[in-house]
Amino acid sequence: MINEIEVIKTKNSKINEVDFSNLKFGSVFSDHMLECDFKDGKWQAPKVVPYAPISLDPAAKIFHYGQSVFEGMKAYKDADGNVLLFRPIDNVKRLNISSKRLAIPEIPENYFMDGLKTLLEVDEAWIPTQDGSSLYIRPFVFASGAGFHASPANEYKFIIATAPSGAYFSGEVRVLIEEKYSRSANGGVGYAKAGGNYAGQFYPTQLAIEKGYQQVIWTDDNTHEYIEEAGAMNIFVRINDTLITGPTSDRILDGITRKSIIELAESENINVEVRPLKVAEVVEAAKNGSLKEMFGAGTAAVISPISGFGYKGDDFELPKLEDTYASFLKKRITDIQTNKVEDPFGWRLQVK
Amino acid sequence: MINEIEVIKTKNSKINEVDFSNLKFGSVFSDHMLECDFKDGKWQAPKVVPYAPISLDPAAKIFHYGQSVFEGMKAYKDADGNVLLFRPIDNVKRLNISSKRLAIPEIPENYFMDGLKTLLEVDEAWIPTQDGSSLYIRPFVFASGAGFHASPANEYKFIIATAPSGAYFSGEVRVLIEEKYSRSANGGVGYAKAGGNYAGQFYPTQLAIEKGYQQVIWTDDNTHEYIEEAGAMNIFVRINDTLITGPTSDRILDGITRKSIIELAESENINVEVRPLKVAEVVEAAKNGSLKEMFGAGTAAVISPISGFGYKGDDFELPKLEDTYASFLKKRITDIQTNKVEDPFGWRLQVK
Ligand SMILES: Cc1ncc(COP(=O)(O)O)c(C=O)c1O
Ligand SMILES: Cc1ncc(COP(=O)(O)O)c(C=O)c1O
Repeated sequence: MINEIEVIKTKNSKINEVDFSNLKFGSVFSDHMLECDFKDGKWQAPKVVPYAPISLDPAAKIFHYGQSVFEGMKAYKDADGNVLLFRPIDNVKRLNISSKRLAIPEIPENYFMDGLKTLLEVDEAWIPTQDGSSLYIRPFVFASGAGFHASPANEYKFIIATAPSGAYFSGEVRVLIEEKYSRSANGGVGYAKAGGNYAGQFYPTQLAIEKGYQQVIWTDDNTHEYIEEAGAMNIFVRINDTLITGPTSDRILDGITRKSIIELAESENINVEVRPLKVAEVVEAAKNGSLKEMFGAGTAAVISPISGFGYKGDDFELPKLEDTYASFLKKRITDIQTNKVEDPFGWRLQVK
Repeated sequence: MINEIEVIKTKNSKINEVDFSNLKFGSVFSDHMLECDFKDGKWQAPKVVPYAPISLDPAAKIFHYGQSVFEGMKAYKDADGNVLLFRPIDNVKRLNISSKRLAIPEIPENYFMDGLKTLLEVDEAWIPTQDGSSLYIRPFVFASGAGFHASPANEYKFIIATAPSGAYFSGEVRVLIEEKYSRSANGGVGYAKAGGNYAGQFYPTQLAIEKGYQQVIWTDDNTHEYIEEAGAMNIFVRINDTLITGPTSDRILDGITRKSIIELAESENINVEVRPLKVAEVVEAAKNGSLKEMFGAGTAAVISPISGFGYKGDDFELPKLEDTYASFLKKRITDIQTNKVEDPFGWRLQVK
C-alpha cells in the first residue's frame, strides 16, 4: 500500500493559455503527469511531476520493438464540483492484460489508482465542465531499457498524462468495411491495447479517408466476412429493434463502453444479441430496409452514430431516424458518467 | 542530392572502454549517430552527431501508437582496411516499404546512404575485425509528433545508430513450432519491419524459453499448418538434398539473407524449392529420416543451424551431419561479405 504519493509541482502553470470553450481532442496537456519507473526488477514509487519531455537512450526498446501498451479513460466534474471516473478498475485490469501479452511487467493496482487520484487532485482545475467535454486520461507503459536484441527490455516507464478534451469526431462518420487489410491475427495481440495495433491501421485508414470515409470497420483476416471493430471503437448494428455486436476474441478489444452499452440496453429491455455478425447480413438488411442504425462505442468517441458505409464499391446510407438507440444510450451513459442520474450499476467512482 | 553531411563530433570517445575481443550483440553503441528530422512536411538535412539521449514529449506518438520501423545491416572491415556493406540499397528500399505501410514518410535514398557513409567514416574505428564480429547498423524511424489522437504523427525522427557486435545466438538453437500464438495477419503488417511485430512475439517466446527452446517458429494464423518464419530469421529446411523455404507474403519479412541464400544455393546447383511448407511434412521427414537440416537466415543471426524442434508436445532431433548446407552457405555468404572471395553477384558495396 502506498500512503502518500510524492508531488513536485510546476512553477509555470499553462492553464491560462487554454481556451476551455473550444477544446479539440487530446492536443493540450495538463500541467502534471504521474511517472513511475520499473527498474532493478520492480516498480519504483510513483510520483506526480511537471509535464515535461522524457529523455531516452536511442537504443531504448520502445523505438525498435514497439513494446508499449496504453489505456484511455475520462474524468468528469459534476455541478457540485465532484470529480468522477467511470469503471476505472476495468482500465487498470485491462492495462495489465495488455502488458502481460506484450511481456511488460504488470503495474500494482494501487500504484495506478492512488497515483491517478493524486494527479487529479493536483490538476483538478484542468477538468472541463462544458457539456461534451472531459479530462481525457492517458495511462501508458513503454520499454525504456536499451539494446538491439529483439527481447523484452529490463526497464519500463509508466506514465499517466491528461488532456482536457472536446469531441473525438467532428461531423458525420462514414465508414468503409475493409476487404483487404486487417487489424489483427488469430493468436495475435488484437485484444491488447498495444501501440503497434494502432500504427498498423493508419495506412488503410488513410486510403479510406481518400475515398471519403472517416474510419475503417475491420473484418476478420481470414475471410473478411465478419465485422470485428473500428479503429478505436467497438461496433453495434441495429436490425429492426435488435442491437447486435460481435463477440470479443483474441482479435478484438474488450471495450468498457461496449460492455456497459450491452448492460444498459438489456436493463432497458432492448433485445441485444452478442454473436458473429456477417457483413453480408448487414448489407442485406441495408437493402431490405431493416438496418436502422450503426454506431461505434468507445471511451474517446462515446457513442458515434454512423451515417453510411461503403463495401465492395457500393455505398449504403443509414436512415435518419428521430429516436435512435444511439442517442438514447449515449444520454443514459453520459448522464451516469457525469452524475446527472442515479447509477444503479455501481460504475461511477467519485474520487473527490 | 546532399553533397556534404554536417558532422558534430563527440568530445568524449568511449572506444577505449570497449573490449573488442569479447563483444555481445547490440549492447555497446558507437560514439556517433546519424539524425534526421521530418518536420514542416519534409525531411530536413541529416547530421552526424554524438550518440546521446533523445528528448520527447510524453504525448509523442511513438509511445502510444507504435508508429515505428527499423532495419538491420552490418558493416565489415577486410584485411586491407576496406569498409564493406552487403546489399545496402535493399535495406533502404525495405525501410521505405515498411514506412509506407505504417503511414510514415519515406526517406530519400541519398539521405540514408550518404548519411550512413559519413557515419561509418566518422566511427570507422568501431568496426570490429575479429572473425564473426561486425558493426551492426540499426537505422530506425519513429513518430516524434505529439497527440492523443490515433492518427499518423506530423513529425518523425530517422536515426542510424551502430553497435560493434559478436554473434546473435550463443549456443545451440532449439525451436518450438507454434500452434496457438501468431506473429501476423493476412492483410496486416507482417512484411514490414514494424516495431509492433517484435513486441508481439516476446510473450510467446518467453513461454517457449520456459519450455527449453530459444526461438519460436511462427505458423500461419489461420490453420497453424504452414511454417512461416522465426522471430528475426527466415527458415530453411533441407529434406534429402532439397532446400525448401516458404514463399514471402504480406505476413512474412522478405529477408535479404533469405534471397541471397536462395541465389547462392542455386548457383551451387543445390536444388531449392520456394513453396508453402507444411509442418506435417517436416514432422513426417523427421520421422522417416529424410529431414537433414533446418536453419534460420537473417542479418543478425547470419545462418543459425537448428538442433531440434518441438511440436504438439513431441520433440524431434536433427541429425548431426559433417558437411551441412548451413555451414557451406554460411561460409560462402560471409566470405563474400568480408571480401575473402570474389563477389559474382555484385552484392558487396565498398564504402571506403
Ligand atoms: C481498438 C479499440 N476498440 C474499442 C475501443 C473502445 O474501448 P473502451 O470502450 O474501453 O474505450 C478502443 C478504445 O479504447 C479501442 O482502441
Ligand atoms: C521477422 C524477420 N524475418 C527475417 C529477417 C531476416 O531478414 P534479413 O536477412 O534481411 O536480415 C529479419 C531480420 O531482419 C526479421 O526481423
